[in-house]
Amino acid sequence: MGVGGVTLAARGRGKLHAACARGAVVAGAGAVALLAVAITFSGSPLPAVLQRTFSLYETHSLKDMEHYVNLVRNIVPAPSAKKHKGQDGRIGVVGGCQEYTGAPYFAAISALKVGADLVHVFCAREAAPVIKSYSPELIVHPILDSRDAAQEVEKWLPRLHSLVVGPGLGRDDLLLNSVGGILEVSKARGLPVVIDADGLWLVAQQPTLIQGYQKAVLTPNHIEFSRLWEAVIKGPMDTKDDSGCVLRLSQALGNVTVVRKGEQDLMSDGQQVLVCNQKGSSRRCGGQGDLLSGSLGVMAHWALLAGPERTDSISPLLVAAWGACTLTRECNQQAFQKHGRSTTTSDMITEVGAAFSKLFET
Amino acid sequence: MGVGGVTLAARGRGKLHAACARGAVVAGAGAVALLAVAITFSGSPLPAVLQRTFSLYETHSLKDMEHYVNLVRNIVPAPSAKKHKGQDGRIGVVGGCQEYTGAPYFAAISALKVGADLVHVFCAREAAPVIKSYSPELIVHPILDSRDAAQEVEKWLPRLHSLVVGPGLGRDDLLLNSVGGILEVSKARGLPVVIDADGLWLVAQQPTLIQGYQKAVLTPNHIEFSRLWEAVIKGPMDTKDDSGCVLRLSQALGNVTVVRKGEQDLMSDGQQVLVCNQKGSSRRCGGQGDLLSGSLGVMAHWALLAGPERTDSISPLLVAAWGACTLTRECNQQAFQKHGRSTTTSDMITEVGAAFSKLFET
Repeated sequence: MGVGGVTLAARGRGKLHAACARGAVVAGAGAVALLAVAITFSGSPLPAVLQRTFSLYETHSLKDMEHYVNLVRNIVPAPSAKKHKGQDGRIGVVGGCQEYTGAPYFAAISALKVGADLVHVFCAREAAPVIKSYSPELIVHPILDSRDAAQEVEKWLPRLHSLVVGPGLGRDDLLLNSVGGILEVSKARGLPVVIDADGLWLVAQQPTLIQGYQKAVLTPNHIEFSRLWEAVIKGPMDTKDDSGCVLRLSQALGNVTVVRKGEQDLMSDGQQVLVCNQKGSSRRCGGQGDLLSGSLGVMAHWALLAGPERTDSISPLLVAAWGACTLTRECNQQAFQKHGRSTTTSDMITEVGAAFSKLFET
Repeated sequence: MGVGGVTLAARGRGKLHAACARGAVVAGAGAVALLAVAITFSGSPLPAVLQRTFSLYETHSLKDMEHYVNLVRNIVPAPSAKKHKGQDGRIGVVGGCQEYTGAPYFAAISALKVGADLVHVFCAREAAPVIKSYSPELIVHPILDSRDAAQEVEKWLPRLHSLVVGPGLGRDDLLLNSVGGILEVSKARGLPVVIDADGLWLVAQQPTLIQGYQKAVLTPNHIEFSRLWEAVIKGPMDTKDDSGCVLRLSQALGNVTVVRKGEQDLMSDGQQVLVCNQKGSSRRCGGQGDLLSGSLGVMAHWALLAGPERTDSISPLLVAAWGACTLTRECNQQAFQKHGRSTTTSDMITEVGAAFSKLFET
C-alpha cells in the first residue's frame, strides 16, 4: 500500500491518443495537487517518480492540494436542518440469494452509514428474513426470484436515487435474468448504477446491458476485471500497464466508469485514470467490496447531483469512485489497528463514520 | 434548529378567531415561561425577537419557567415500588408487513424505553419472526393479514392503554382494511390512538375513520400533511402560515390533534398551536418518526391519565406530543454528537433513557 492519495494520469497508446487528449490537459494542471493529496493522507515517502513530478510543480502544490482534497468534499451534501427524510439519498441494493445474505447487508448498511437516509434491498425470497434480521434499518423486498421481479423493482425506482447491483447475487439464471431486466428499466430512468460481484458476471455475459451507459460504474477485482477484458476486448492484456488497461476497458464499454480494485485502485471514465493508494492493511476478508459498492452507490448520487462544476470538470463519478475507494481503505486501516488479523468487514463498517469524518469533513 | 424549547402561539385568522380565543389567553400567560424552556434546553443565543419578549416578562420568568417545564414532567408517572407490571403502560403497535419490519420495531422498542411496561406488535404473518428477532422484549402477534384481524386485535384491547397505528404498515388493501376495523373498535373503547406513516395514508383515503375522535393524534411529515390537507380541506394551503395550517386541519378534523413534523414541529388541537424547535441535527435517516410515534403512544396514555388539571388546562395530548417531539430531537442530537453522519435510528434509540432523564427528570 504505502503511499495514500491519488494520481491523475492521462494515458495514450496507439489508437487511444485522441480520446485521452482532455485527460492529458487535466493531468498537466492537476497532477501536483493530487500528489499533494498523497502527502496529506500518508506518512510514507513518495516513490521516486512521484517525487520528481511533485518537485517540478512545487510552487503550486499547496494551493492545488487544497483544491483537490476539496473535490470529494464538494460533492458531500451540506448539512441542513431544513432537509426532509430521503433528500440525502435513497439507495437500492439488488442482491441476496440462497447462499449469500451478508454481502447485500454490508452494501446496504454501508450506504446508510455513509449518509444515505433510506436503503432498500431487493433480494430472493429466501434471503429476505435473514437480511432483515441483521438490521432494522433496512427495507427488504423479497422479490428477486419472482417472475415479475423487474416490474416489482421498477415500481420503486421513482423513489430511488441510485442502484447497487450484484452484492450476494449469485449465478442462478432466474436471478440473473431478473437483474438484466432491472438494469434495462434503470437505464430507461437514467438511474446511476454501481455493478459489482456477480452483477459483473452478468455484464461479462452480456456487455450490451451497460454498453455506452455512462451512469454505470463497474467495480471489478482482479479476476472480474480479467473476465470483463476477455468478454469486451477479447485480446491479450498488457500486464505491465494496469492503468492503460482500465482506461481501454472503459473506452471499449463506451466510457462506462471502471474501478479496478487491487493493491492500488485504478479507475477510469475512458478519458482519465485516477489512482487511489490510500493506506489500508493486509487484511482481505470478504465483504470489503460490498462496503465499497454501497458507499459508492451514495457518493455516485451525490456526485451527479453536484455536477462537474463542483469536481473541477473531472467526471463526477470518478471523484465519487475515488472517494469510496479512499474511504474503504481508511476503514480497513482503522479496523486493522484495533483488531489485527481478526478484522472483519463488520469491524470496518463500524469505522465508516470516523473514517468519513477524518477524510472528508473538516 | 438553534433555539430549543417551545413557543405557545394562538392563531386567529378570519373564521378562526373565535376558536383561538382560549389559545390567545394561554399564550399571554405562558409565553415567557415557555421561552425560558428554550433557554434551558439550548446553549445557542436566542434570536432577537425571543430575547425581547423574554425581557418584557423577566420578573415572572423563573416561576413560570418552573411551572411550564413541569407540564411534561407532571404527566410522567411517579416512580413507586408498589407498582405492578403494566401500570406504567401497555402499548400496542399496529404495523409490519412484507417490506417493512424495522419501523414497528423502532416504534415498539421506543415505547418500551420511554417507560412502558409491555409492548405488543400486531403485524402481518411474514413480518412477525423478523420483528421478534430484533428483540425478545416485544410481544408480536402475526395476525394483521388474517381475515378477522380486527377481532383478533379487539381481544387484546382491554389490556392496552393506547395504540400506535401505521409504522411499517404498507399499502396492501387487506392490511389497510384490517386497520380500518381496528380503528373502529379502538374508538368504541375510547383508546388513545397515535397514527403515523401509512396509517395516515389510510386516514387520507377515509377521513371519517378519525373525524371528531379527540383521542386521536396524527403525526404527518411534510408530504403526509399535504396529503391530509388535500383530503380534508381540499383548498390551497397557505405555505407562509404553517401554524395556521396545522390549526385549521385539526379543526377541520373535529379537534383531532395534529403534529406536523418538520424543521420545527408544530402541533395543534384546533385551539392552540405548540411549537417544538428543540435542537436536533441535520441527519434525516429513516425511522425517526417511529421513535416519535412510539414515544407518543406512551406519553399520550400518561397525559390522559394525568388530565388537564396537571397540564395547566392545555390539552394533555398536546403536552404529550410536545414531550415526544422534544425527546426525539434530543435523541437525534445526542446520537449525532457521537456518530455524526453515520447516525441511525438505532443509535437514537440508545439515547432515549439519557435524553428523557435530561429533559424530564430532575
